[in-house]
Amino acid sequence: MAAYDYDLFVIGGGSGGVRAGRVAAALGKRVAIAEEHRFGGTCVIRGCVPKKLFVYASQYREHFEDAAGYGWKVGETTFDWDTLLAAKDKEILRLEGLYRRGLESNGARIIDSRAELVDAHTVRLVHTGQTVTADRIVIATGGTPNPHAALPGHELCISSNEAFDLPQLPRSMLIAGGGYIAVEFANVFHGLGVAVTLIYRGKEILSRFDHDLRQGLHKAMVDKGFRIILTDVMEKVEQKVDGGLLVRTMCGESILVDTVMLALGREPNTQGLGLEAAGVEVDPLGAIVVDQYSRTNVPSIYALGDVTHRVQLTPVAIHEAMCFIETEYRNNPTSPDHDLIPTAVFSQPEIGTVGLSEEEAAKKYSEIEVYRAEFRPMKATLSGRMEKMLMKLVVDAAGRKVVGAHVLGHEAGEMVQLLGVSLKAGVTKDDFDRTMAVHPTAAEELVTMYQPSYRIRDGVRV
Amino acid sequence: MAAYDYDLFVIGGGSGGVRAGRVAAALGKRVAIAEEHRFGGTCVIRGCVPKKLFVYASQYREHFEDAAGYGWKVGETTFDWDTLLAAKDKEILRLEGLYRRGLESNGARIIDSRAELVDAHTVRLVHTGQTVTADRIVIATGGTPNPHAALPGHELCISSNEAFDLPQLPRSMLIAGGGYIAVEFANVFHGLGVAVTLIYRGKEILSRFDHDLRQGLHKAMVDKGFRIILTDVMEKVEQKVDGGLLVRTMCGESILVDTVMLALGREPNTQGLGLEAAGVEVDPLGAIVVDQYSRTNVPSIYALGDVTHRVQLTPVAIHEAMCFIETEYRNNPTSPDHDLIPTAVFSQPEIGTVGLSEEEAAKKYSEIEVYRAEFRPMKATLSGRMEKMLMKLVVDAAGRKVVGAHVLGHEAGEMVQLLGVSLKAGVTKDDFDRTMAVHPTAAEELVTMYQPSYRIRDGVRV
Repeated sequence: MAAYDYDLFVIGGGSGGVRAGRVAAALGKRVAIAEEHRFGGTCVIRGCVPKKLFVYASQYREHFEDAAGYGWKVGETTFDWDTLLAAKDKEILRLEGLYRRGLESNGARIIDSRAELVDAHTVRLVHTGQTVTADRIVIATGGTPNPHAALPGHELCISSNEAFDLPQLPRSMLIAGGGYIAVEFANVFHGLGVAVTLIYRGKEILSRFDHDLRQGLHKAMVDKGFRIILTDVMEKVEQKVDGGLLVRTMCGESILVDTVMLALGREPNTQGLGLEAAGVEVDPLGAIVVDQYSRTNVPSIYALGDVTHRVQLTPVAIHEAMCFIETEYRNNPTSPDHDLIPTAVFSQPEIGTVGLSEEEAAKKYSEIEVYRAEFRPMKATLSGRMEKMLMKLVVDAAGRKVVGAHVLGHEAGEMVQLLGVSLKAGVTKDDFDRTMAVHPTAAEELVTMYQPSYRIRDGVRV
Repeated sequence: MAAYDYDLFVIGGGSGGVRAGRVAAALGKRVAIAEEHRFGGTCVIRGCVPKKLFVYASQYREHFEDAAGYGWKVGETTFDWDTLLAAKDKEILRLEGLYRRGLESNGARIIDSRAELVDAHTVRLVHTGQTVTADRIVIATGGTPNPHAALPGHELCISSNEAFDLPQLPRSMLIAGGGYIAVEFANVFHGLGVAVTLIYRGKEILSRFDHDLRQGLHKAMVDKGFRIILTDVMEKVEQKVDGGLLVRTMCGESILVDTVMLALGREPNTQGLGLEAAGVEVDPLGAIVVDQYSRTNVPSIYALGDVTHRVQLTPVAIHEAMCFIETEYRNNPTSPDHDLIPTAVFSQPEIGTVGLSEEEAAKKYSEIEVYRAEFRPMKATLSGRMEKMLMKLVVDAAGRKVVGAHVLGHEAGEMVQLLGVSLKAGVTKDDFDRTMAVHPTAAEELVTMYQPSYRIRDGVRV
């Protein structure tokens, strides 16, 4: 062992890499971690954290509007993009510092350089050209937005990376994509006053989500003034002389906007990483192939987080890192558990979802019960806002187990975190029925839906 | 049976009475329901509903303040009390109409009159003097604020009833009491711009709540500019010639305020109800004594909700009504389940709590684990607000069952509704640990507290 410079070398300072490096160092391992950009990774630098801060910023417009119904007169309000960016940057810098200090205080060596594999135990630091060796290597280089290089004019477009640092707030924006990143940024920029159009090739936004969530959010967005174009894609993007971008779509539309953002999925960061030199296998999409213990085909090399293209979520990467630690350094082989992961979409209204959609459950179980409530939240009665909340429980009729829970509306993310505990514990609909309501809340609807709205037997609604 | 005018006569048109009457009527029973004031009861007319609307109104002040950190410049804001009252009244009228229509459409007869018992099967309608008979009688007359008649000057004070309709918003207010009603109104009026002082005889507000919630909320309120006086009570209240009220306290303080509100508990509405004539037993506090099926000592007479002084909450009264229906009209004897009732205090920050406090759990179990996180919520990083969130799980160390869950902070009420499902289902701490975090949320702290903060063994913190 001592023949290697380190017990563990981590490539990539995001959520998964930092967790693996920090905890291994805390256990007394000799650890180095290399990051070419900034510690914190997608989540802290250009993902979850700045996104959620932008979401908060974008929610104030509705607060100001809603206040009137409650007796408030609000003077003229203005929004300053630069102030938000500066505040966001300051917070990210603070968090980045915490990540670095967490590593340092546990004794990990921080290397501010790109690192590439040379062989199964060797890494080259691009910054200095130096090579270092390690007993184990963890690749946690994350992902990057799909640049859609086949699109003429793609170089005129931004991705979510640039959206966090636009020199000025555009007046209008076209966002291409129908996933949660497209939907979240659409809602953020709309809330900040940008005229937003969403274009997506599918029949409805947010594929794989429960259809009620998809349609409910779509309707809420359209009611707010979004334009959503479905079953169409961009054909080309051209720079206009006056500074705007002209987008032509396959269906023949011409759309003129200040900014075009691509949110067409994310790709694993594996290019030029030396995977071939080290003999590490990747799948056709470039993701590193791992087994149930996050091991690559090379026994000394592991991969965690988005670069493995399992589930692209921060908590999952952290969980995979902790499983790696248990397996490799605590003699307790532990596979990541990717079942029943609760997730949120921080749109307005928000989505929280865990378990199976109605469609998935109807395929899996011979009979399901669907409990569904759509209602105007109490706050909207005085604000006059027409938005509806939707709550839905999907139950396996045979065992009474709740197999899916879906919420559209304020604080759906907070709710689904705790619905996630219940579903993970395998609770039944009877457990929901037995729970006393907390009045007045929105979540009480979830425990007062005593009769199924409908059933689906052998795939047929009855 | 047909010898009686009705199968069921309900006295009191609040949450419990209306539910019992409506569902019995829907089952084909001949039902009458008498209400002397307005249908909807405490909850709709002068409790939960207008309270929560006021809470929403009072939250905007912080929204306006917090917006600056997110890049918003908010013009001068003013609050108009009359606008809020008018909007609140309109909404209550709407809900009252829904209650009435729900009864009517199911065939219940609505009687807008006070009703008093004559004997075990007879009720006198005060409005007309007419008597009617019924096979079963349900008393659901609710409760009323304790008027503290022993306090010199108590007639100068208001209760929560009047707080909903004050002719004008006071500049300053003293609220006497330390329970959730006192605390909620204190926060509402503070948010609307009133200088609020709270006076409570106990050592800390919110007795019986977990000590961390009590101290955490106390601190947050003081930091916002509340004055909280503990271990003291009012001795007398005097009208000053200039219109203010001068309060003298037992400890010798003199406090001059525009308005004094008493929130010193609620008493069952049993006075003059004819209970003696019908032979219905009450306890020393005037509450109707019932068995586990909400039956009084008179076989044909039942009592539900606050008038029985079991648990004074709307969902509990509704639950007791549904149990009455099951027991009496569906041949399915069902006792109300008063265990593990989740509740919220709509203060700012909010409280959500279910199960045992740390103190209660430490007495009940030989060893408990306490998982506790106190943190600044993400939203506060940019708003600059110093308020902290607190989350706490109390776990029976032997069985790993989570026996108490406590949250202080935004949306604690929504969270505790769903924590309530988990605790009711008897989930373990391991179920929390197994649940993937939803990032970034506040609730994710509840599933990422892997190590106990401390343990209490045989009552001693270790």
